[in-house]
Amino acid sequence: MTEIKVPVVRNILQANERLAAENRRRFDEAGIFVVNLMSSPGAGKTSLLEKTIDALAGRIGIAVIEGDLQSSYDAERIQKKGVQAVQINTDGGCHLDGNMIQIALESLDLSGVDLLIIENVGNLVCPAEFNLGEHEKIMILSVAEGDDKPVKYPLMFQICSVLLVNKIDLLPYTDCDMSKIRERVGQLNARGKIFEISCRTGEGFAPWLSWIEEKVGEHRTLRAGKQS
Amino acid sequence: MTEIKVPVVRNILQANERLAAENRRRFDEAGIFVVNLMSSPGAGKTSLLEKTIDALAGRIGIAVIEGDLQSSYDAERIQKKGVQAVQINTDGGCHLDGNMIQIALESLDLSGVDLLIIENVGNLVCPAEFNLGEHEKIMILSVAEGDDKPVKYPLMFQICSVLLVNKIDLLPYTDCDMSKIRERVGQLNARGKIFEISCRTGEGFAPWLSWIEEKVGEHRTLRAGKQS
Repeated sequence: MTEIKVPVVRNILQANERLAAENRRRFDEAGIFVVNLMSSPGAGKTSLLEKTIDALAGRIGIAVIEGDLQSSYDAERIQKKGVQAVQINTDGGCHLDGNMIQIALESLDLSGVDLLIIENVGNLVCPAEFNLGEHEKIMILSVAEGDDKPVKYPLMFQICSVLLVNKIDLLPYTDCDMSKIRERVGQLNARGKIFEISCRTGEGFAPWLSWIEEKVGEHRTLRAGKQS
Repeated sequence: MTEIKVPVVRNILQANERLAAENRRRFDEAGIFVVNLMSSPGAGKTSLLEKTIDALAGRIGIAVIEGDLQSSYDAERIQKKGVQAVQINTDGGCHLDGNMIQIALESLDLSGVDLLIIENVGNLVCPAEFNLGEHEKIMILSVAEGDDKPVKYPLMFQICSVLLVNKIDLLPYTDCDMSKIRERVGQLNARGKIFEISCRTGEGFAPWLSWIEEKVGEHRTLRAGKQS
């Protein structure tokens, strides 16, 4: 079975890279900063989006692509915040891919959008292998998942430029050791930033919001340079 | 891309069914009760195993197959409890399959084993699609993941005969509503049992242990019937 599976996965990944590169060109032409947001189920991706939109919506044009196996639950949560949201249903698929993003983009009006956040399917494995055309990969780890996750799912921790450690309000009630998370992530990914946050209490959001605003500013400058 | 991917996945699933059926025959011949334990990363699979082994090891012969992308961290935790444990490293694969279990069985001595627990890769998506030859599928949901998970990952909730809702000690500190979990799971899976537990405090373990002991007893009876 190994002989059958490996080449097939490689073909899919190669085909995906081409589509991801097309998406990336489109985002760069429009000067939009795009992030691919990944985590385990229930680590707080949609809650992070809600809080981030609340904080930035007046200053930054935001759009969201939501990925789920089924339901439009998350896109509805985002639309209530007054920003454009498109829901992708993977119908059992465990990750988003470049093709799904191309199809979703047909339903988005990108004029006035500075920041596009793609919320991937909740899964620490396959989403790490499929580029969508994003500029940065961002991961959320909930402290309730435990400090051993970097050891168990190393690729995801390696490829992300930002790790948001969420639900820090639960730290006193768990056995999770933040210093172990920092040590283990540091061994896998020395250049990545780590922000400790609580989507429930709002604690720790300022550095995350500054990072996003800085990145959006860089891409706006690129867009202005092209238009002048 | 859809035309390429779908038939490949079907072929893999069909090939897997044959191997899972072979595993199942082997388990039944040996009178061993086998469970496939699934959850998101960090929901508490290995902690459940540790607590269950502590409670049952004197009365029931237990062996464990651990599935992870990398590392032998979990198998080492289990071996410290004095039971046989084999680690499968999927090397990036997001689920266990029947073939991996066949290979792992070569490293286990099944004589004296009444209960084999297979801990799948932490993932609510693909593990739901691959039978391993187990008698029952069991799922753990951590209350920290939130009460909307049945809506987002319905197949996993549909196929499991037992749902263990773990980390109930965290309920006062989260927005998770247990009645919503029960209502949403009930809509997907009317026959499944739900046990509310805390691996940290030990709360709620008695009904789960009774269920396991009853199942092991049924399979022992089948074994005794064959031998007489």
